Amino acid sequence: MEVAVAIDCMGGDHGARVTVPAAIAWSRRDPACRFILVGLQDAINAELKSAGVAAGPQLAVRHATEVVGMDEPPANALRGKKDSSMRVAIDLVKSGEAQACVSAGNTGALMATSRFVLKTLPGIDRPAIAGMLPTLKGHTHILDLGANVDCTAEHLLQFAIMGAELVASVENKPRPSVGLLNIGTEDIKGNDVVKDAATLLRGSGLNFFGNIEGDDIYKGTTDVIVCDGFVGNVALKTSEGLAQMLATYLREEFGRNVLTRLAGLVALPVIRAFKNRVDHRRYNGASLLGLRGVVIKSHGSADVYGFGFAIEHALDEVRSGMLEHIMRRMAASQTKVETA
Amino acid sequence: MEVAVAIDCMGGDHGARVTVPAAIAWSRRDPACRFILVGLQDAINAELKSAGVAAGPQLAVRHATEVVGMDEPPANALRGKKDSSMRVAIDLVKSGEAQACVSAGNTGALMATSRFVLKTLPGIDRPAIAGMLPTLKGHTHILDLGANVDCTAEHLLQFAIMGAELVASVENKPRPSVGLLNIGTEDIKGNDVVKDAATLLRGSGLNFFGNIEGDDIYKGTTDVIVCDGFVGNVALKTSEGLAQMLATYLREEFGRNVLTRLAGLVALPVIRAFKNRVDHRRYNGASLLGLRGVVIKSHGSADVYGFGFAIEHALDEVRSGMLEHIMRRMAASQTKVETA
Repeated sequence: MEVAVAIDCMGGDHGARVTVPAAIAWSRRDPACRFILVGLQDAINAELKSAGVAAGPQLAVRHATEVVGMDEPPANALRGKKDSSMRVAIDLVKSGEAQACVSAGNTGALMATSRFVLKTLPGIDRPAIAGMLPTLKGHTHILDLGANVDCTAEHLLQFAIMGAELVASVENKPRPSVGLLNIGTEDIKGNDVVKDAATLLRGSGLNFFGNIEGDDIYKGTTDVIVCDGFVGNVALKTSEGLAQMLATYLREEFGRNVLTRLAGLVALPVIRAFKNRVDHRRYNGASLLGLRGVVIKSHGSADVYGFGFAIEHALDEVRSGMLEHIMRRMAASQTKVETA
Repeated sequence: MEVAVAIDCMGGDHGARVTVPAAIAWSRRDPACRFILVGLQDAINAELKSAGVAAGPQLAVRHATEVVGMDEPPANALRGKKDSSMRVAIDLVKSGEAQACVSAGNTGALMATSRFVLKTLPGIDRPAIAGMLPTLKGHTHILDLGANVDCTAEHLLQFAIMGAELVASVENKPRPSVGLLNIGTEDIKGNDVVKDAATLLRGSGLNFFGNIEGDDIYKGTTDVIVCDGFVGNVALKTSEGLAQMLATYLREEFGRNVLTRLAGLVALPVIRAFKNRVDHRRYNGASLLGLRGVVIKSHGSADVYGFGFAIEHALDEVRSGMLEHIMRRMAASQTKVETA
């Protein structure tokens, strides 16, 4: 299936130096995928040139004069930078020239601009950020990762529906299990929002597993994990911090003296296999779910390898018809509510 | 300094098989520490006997006829089991026979019973659970870990004061830094409660660092981390789950074939040093802070080695005069409010 993807080439810590080579690499693997490279044309063309690639139908350049800063207030970007690479890339999704947008830029600005330009899907009050994490059984999807700090039970239900439809369409898993992140598995645990959300989820027709706890994330207890954006963001960042600390400790222990360094040399293939298995770059690319368009947020620090996974997510969501799946489910649940 | 510690010998997954040997081991290290071993006397005496130790002034046995189940509703335990090992151990703190209580039992029941029997310190609305986590710089203290799912900004301020006084007294660090767990470092980030708490903390006279994010926990950015019990519990359990997954992966990679097993053999001393550094047993023992007495909660699955650290925390809090430190600080901040 032919897909056009708009790349916000200036976003992220590395800008065009990462985004353009990632698009080039992907264009070679997937001839049915066309890229619209949005940003300062000199920067983009320089990257194409250094890769020995010419712009053309598969790698089109769209000049945009402004760049959204990584720490810029979202409102600034939205109101003041109408010709930013981020805004123009999202506009291309709105106009239908592209079916998806991928950006490693400022998360807040990307969410605010996407919401303003694309609007939310019918029945969705607020978009959420959904990400993938490795588990003992494979991987899981968790949302929201930080777009919504205050959520009602209805918001959590909408997140559950969106997350389930994402997995159902992209992974072709008809009834993915959904867990509600809580501080205990019993019904009486948690705050009122979580308790009310559990009631809604039990009556939703989704494959609701029930309450889960933080350690269930990495046990892979459910296919989808629902939580408010404050909790999800803390869980994600805490995991990043712990993984970094453990990696540092492991490096320090193997680097302690000549003997440990020799042991490290012997163990190198094993350590490499281990690192590859938990390589966070393979989980790069969070979905801004609930919008009338596919928008993928790459980690700001992603390299070419990692940014490629964000592109892959965008393509998977477009080709699996994820938006239609969500819309159909929302329409069905609305009808249910109206006739109830 | 002489201290008497009441041990809830029946609490935890292993009951007297862990709690009694841990008390015996500690009694040998610390002759000024006396233990009151509370629970089913047959079970306790059997453990003393199998260790070849006689009950006496340093290891006194106090019979209690009931046991609180690990999954029993807290209200049940509180109302229905007035002669449980947990309740009697807490009663001993109330009566002054013991200066601290250590339990590996049901967290909810321990909190409810402690609060009912001991009451909160003047100026403290709700007790909080404070735990220790390893960091790149050493360790940090985080609270609340799950006692309070809904918190106001004032509660978070009280947690901050208690956490800071815990570190100030136990670690002899006069002005420990305090971080507020949030989803971004800028002032505009987070929900209203967190924003209001930041304002209160800035005016509190504490050494307030500002907002921190999840990854700052393990970076060791601050000495104390404050959050509501929902967020703290998710952060803790998520960490446990991630650590278990990584340990499983590492074991699997080293166990893959003869060559990797040989590499594992060579790397064993390094892996052991690494594991020892992050051994969660060394961080066992969470403080129920804000009560008129020292109560320490051990992890339910703790072994003898781990339970010893919970005992050590209890002794540190008693000997450093932590309760007086918290009371003095609360009185000072009340006066400030009244004269403002």
